[in-house]
Amino acid sequence: MAQRRTITGFSNPLVKFLRSLRDKKHRKREQRFLVEGLRLLTDARASGKLPEILVMATNRAAHPLLDALEADVAAAGGDVVEMDEAILSKVTGKDNPQAVAGVFPEFDTALTNLDRSKAPIWLVAQAMRDPGNLGTMLRTGDAVGAGGLILLDNCADPFSVEAVRASMGAVFTQGIAQASWDEFLPWLRGDDGQLVAASLRDPCDYRQAAYEAPCFLMVGNESQGLPEAYEDACDLRVTMPMLGRADSLNAAIAAAVLAYEALAHLRTA
Amino acid sequence: MAQRRTITGFSNPLVKFLRSLRDKKHRKREQRFLVEGLRLLTDARASGKLPEILVMATNRAAHPLLDALEADVAAAGGDVVEMDEAILSKVTGKDNPQAVAGVFPEFDTALTNLDRSKAPIWLVAQAMRDPGNLGTMLRTGDAVGAGGLILLDNCADPFSVEAVRASMGAVFTQGIAQASWDEFLPWLRGDDGQLVAASLRDPCDYRQAAYEAPCFLMVGNESQGLPEAYEDACDLRVTMPMLGRADSLNAAIAAAVLAYEALAHLRTA
Repeated sequence: MAQRRTITGFSNPLVKFLRSLRDKKHRKREQRFLVEGLRLLTDARASGKLPEILVMATNRAAHPLLDALEADVAAAGGDVVEMDEAILSKVTGKDNPQAVAGVFPEFDTALTNLDRSKAPIWLVAQAMRDPGNLGTMLRTGDAVGAGGLILLDNCADPFSVEAVRASMGAVFTQGIAQASWDEFLPWLRGDDGQLVAASLRDPCDYRQAAYEAPCFLMVGNESQGLPEAYEDACDLRVTMPMLGRADSLNAAIAAAVLAYEALAHLRTA
Repeated sequence: MAQRRTITGFSNPLVKFLRSLRDKKHRKREQRFLVEGLRLLTDARASGKLPEILVMATNRAAHPLLDALEADVAAAGGDVVEMDEAILSKVTGKDNPQAVAGVFPEFDTALTNLDRSKAPIWLVAQAMRDPGNLGTMLRTGDAVGAGGLILLDNCADPFSVEAVRASMGAVFTQGIAQASWDEFLPWLRGDDGQLVAASLRDPCDYRQAAYEAPCFLMVGNESQGLPEAYEDACDLRVTMPMLGRADSLNAAIAAAVLAYEALAHLRTA
């Protein structure tokens, strides 16, 4: 087992660095993000991604998966650091911190990294502000065999602690791209791809619609929905029953209902 | 317009009372809950529910819906109170509080209040810990024309600010019942009702399953899923494709995908 560093002071620069990663501005400057908990770190490892820095509470319970993780991080030249639970609480901002956390380099989120031929379904979120919704969309994307999540315009940060947690590890397996609408639309139209949105304007029944792979399922901002011009640009507008008083679903729910419907059509097509 | 009271001090007993409603223990003791924002309060009013106390920021923008709400509350003998935005911030615990909030009596959540013949679909959540998930399930229930949400065992509080907000007003339109499994199962079996859960044990494909109204769609705790005995008691166990690395969906997502599928079957049945 490699040598571990032990940190005993709250004012240690590494503690300050780790804490700063809870803040989007610092994440963007450092191009690093924080992942908490053995389960997520093990998901990352299973996806071939190791943290540059592995932080463990001194009084953690022993676990073979943690030993394996530590060995891999050390072998890859990463940093392994122990600290008191009280200091780790400061890092994670929680009273009951996970006993382990890791720092990862942010992934390159250029649209041009995505290979649309890799998967029949892609999810697209426009100006989605809730990191939990983004993480849930990543998790749903994993379940339906999507290639990834494309974030348009001013979305929440997919590398926030909340989004990573809600993704249940899918942040490491789903492709993630960030683009403006003006970048996305020409990229989409540069090759095959059907753009689909839930809409009330001249829509098909979502159960009867003719989904085609690669199918890009787009949902909009939680309170505003999609801009009209974005709906106009869609190849397919679909509608789901709304039998109650409300006129919309939660954005991550709408994406999931659509994605499972499209999946059923595309698997039998 | 009725007389309004104005509160100018942070230490006013009403301010303390309102703040206390952010805490579950106090909500249960007072049997009251807090609803923030004109949109939710207007949803409540449209559903025939008025707050006992209406609280408004002194510097709020005028709005005809707020005037209508104030008039209705006053006519019903409710209390209308103004306070500085700074004090209202203390009540709502947010830097940018909504300019209006209301206090409602909690609803009676006895199982025996539910009339299962009223709706083809009912949602059931077991030991669900995330109030956002509960609220989202209420919102989804409204959309699919469900009768309500039944909370089994130790669920989060459906009257928490987070759940009420995520419900987008459905907390006022969906039935809500709270029960233990040992209360629920005899009630369920006392009349028609199909109990359905997503499960990996001997399941049907969720697209091919024979849903029957009234259909009770049950999802389990976010990390543990449903207890085995609960799955055993189901009339139908269904499975959804899980094509990625993860073995489960977010609980509110699973409920929604199932609910929309059951709805499609039951509408064409």
